[in-house]
Amino acid sequence: MADVTIHKGLDNVIIDESRLSLVNGAEGKLVYSGYKIEDLAANALYEEVVYLLWNGRLPNKAELELLRAEIAENAFVAPEILEILKHLPKNSDPMAVMRSAVSLLAHYDPDSEDTSAEANRRKAVRLNGQAVTLAAAWARIRKGLGPVPPRLDLNLAQNFIYMLRDEAPEASAVNAINAYMVLLTEHGMNASTFSARVTVSTGSDMHSAIVSAIGTLKGPAHGGANAEAMKMFLEIGDPANVQTWFDENIKSGKRRIMGIGHRVYKALDPRAAVLRDRAEALAVGSGNGKWFEIADKLAILARANEYFIERNLHPNVDYFSAIVLYTLDLDVDMFTPLFAMSRMAGWTAHIMEQAANNRLVRPDVLYTGPVDLVWTSLEER
Amino acid sequence: MADVTIHKGLDNVIIDESRLSLVNGAEGKLVYSGYKIEDLAANALYEEVVYLLWNGRLPNKAELELLRAEIAENAFVAPEILEILKHLPKNSDPMAVMRSAVSLLAHYDPDSEDTSAEANRRKAVRLNGQAVTLAAAWARIRKGLGPVPPRLDLNLAQNFIYMLRDEAPEASAVNAINAYMVLLTEHGMNASTFSARVTVSTGSDMHSAIVSAIGTLKGPAHGGANAEAMKMFLEIGDPANVQTWFDENIKSGKRRIMGIGHRVYKALDPRAAVLRDRAEALAVGSGNGKWFEIADKLAILARANEYFIERNLHPNVDYFSAIVLYTLDLDVDMFTPLFAMSRMAGWTAHIMEQAANNRLVRPDVLYTGPVDLVWTSLEER
Repeated sequence: MADVTIHKGLDNVIIDESRLSLVNGAEGKLVYSGYKIEDLAANALYEEVVYLLWNGRLPNKAELELLRAEIAENAFVAPEILEILKHLPKNSDPMAVMRSAVSLLAHYDPDSEDTSAEANRRKAVRLNGQAVTLAAAWARIRKGLGPVPPRLDLNLAQNFIYMLRDEAPEASAVNAINAYMVLLTEHGMNASTFSARVTVSTGSDMHSAIVSAIGTLKGPAHGGANAEAMKMFLEIGDPANVQTWFDENIKSGKRRIMGIGHRVYKALDPRAAVLRDRAEALAVGSGNGKWFEIADKLAILARANEYFIERNLHPNVDYFSAIVLYTLDLDVDMFTPLFAMSRMAGWTAHIMEQAANNRLVRPDVLYTGPVDLVWTSLEER
Repeated sequence: MADVTIHKGLDNVIIDESRLSLVNGAEGKLVYSGYKIEDLAANALYEEVVYLLWNGRLPNKAELELLRAEIAENAFVAPEILEILKHLPKNSDPMAVMRSAVSLLAHYDPDSEDTSAEANRRKAVRLNGQAVTLAAAWARIRKGLGPVPPRLDLNLAQNFIYMLRDEAPEASAVNAINAYMVLLTEHGMNASTFSARVTVSTGSDMHSAIVSAIGTLKGPAHGGANAEAMKMFLEIGDPANVQTWFDENIKSGKRRIMGIGHRVYKALDPRAAVLRDRAEALAVGSGNGKWFEIADKLAILARANEYFIERNLHPNVDYFSAIVLYTLDLDVDMFTPLFAMSRMAGWTAHIMEQAANNRLVRPDVLYTGPVDLVWTSLEER
């Protein structure tokens, strides 16, 4: 107990081993179970990555089709829950809705209180599908539209676009969403993943752990950053305003650029590089390149600025993903639920890894208050 | 990055400073903001402890009455949420119900997305009252009874008994519940409190953090232990069976005694000593001393056993609290929701402490999987 070093934020404190992903912040490298994120984003179906994380190897064609079909079949959300969502205030924060909805799923899940490895795998399959269904359902319900049930023949990226728009999913949107989901699937011991592992470390169940993860992702310093970045681009409003906005708000030190800088990455976040290209292609394709142009111009100004250079601040995954999602016509406050549905595979993989080799997470704290105060009765105070 | 020590479970890793409580595991001492737990359990109203934790000092008479009234006035739960609870499957795990219900509270809380200190204090007042209302409501709803709204003139211990039974709260039950709540209010950086702090460290909101805490407390290695202990006493069934049960299950090494042993306490948990006396008094008063006798006999056997002596395993707070709650005629699976409603003051105090001096909690992990695998197309696999 001689060591009273305070590890506030747990920077560089290694909490466990994991075979799920390597985040090399110094070199800007990200690997899921052996495969570079660039290869996965260019080639893999989201379900292929889910299989990779859960099994430690890529599936063959039959295995992939089996998992795709299993997830699609289990993507249905109990009608009781959709009824509840329909009666929630329409202006509810969409991440709060995701948190409530996933918590409610437990009441209708036959395995909710079974923490065995077999039950956890079944729940992981369901939650990966249901999260996509819930995100699409709330995007419609909040506008007074009815939710669309998932189709059994589609993969998750297709199903998301289908359930969102209630029309045959068009390839360019599906490809963008699939790539986005692959890029966001997993990222080491980030705060939301860590909170899920803390929850399950007490022997608690998978739904509880995912609910913790969603509530933790919700914060603007984590998953909420994609929405914050887009609000900033909207505030700038036009590529012609970037320089002035930068000088007034950033150079002056008044504000930070949302989506630039990362706890771990001191080089460029490799996901940001992929997403920048995706955002550019989508912007060109949509005929509305304005938002990409604003983001790109702002990033270039930051890259040349001393403050950013000295601190190794580069665009992170949230910065350009905001442009991708906005170009797909998603509401800004629905961005973080999309992050959540994409991260579901990583969260569930971490929960299974923690449960398989568990130890209660119980840190310590340095007490700084008084000791040995003498109790006085209410009358004497 | 040369240090690759793995702090699995974060044992003895100091995560932060806190002025809320001192847990001295070696000496079996527990202090809330300066006051010994024994003094508080013997003298304090639960609201007095809430005031102490939130303000760092005891209230005078007027301040205490103001807080009591403020909490009672804010203990109402939106009728929409009670409607949802009425339609949930009656066999839902009560902690899952608490988790869902608190998550739903956010949709009807005018401050849910405001993370300012002022809004946090208002939400903390509401949540402390609402948690008691929700626990009592679910105890009734699951049996097909209507929930009873809180009374403005009562304190939380009185209101709990009143809302549970729908009759004037009788003093012996109120005193027992108040002492239980005081004993369970706060306990340093336990797993549920830690998960709440991780959640709020991303800038997320108080409801999200409390929902994480509830899901984390739910596990059998944390708050779920009181129910597990009672199930064990019920299995033993009679004081005459204790010795045989101990020999067959514990001496043989087949099972552990639920509620004996603690990560931090290597001496007797001071809360267990207070609760043992409370449990004995209640048992005598109720005319049914059987369950206390079983628990006490089993603890005595453990105390004399080499395995327990060598490992410093003593009854913890959950062991005798199970007897107290069972004697008050609470269902075994409602024990953990009572823990949750009592811990609400500690959780909210920690959330406010974290928010006032925040750093994103983002540990690291040691990647043990492969690197640089070569991507092969689906057809080649």
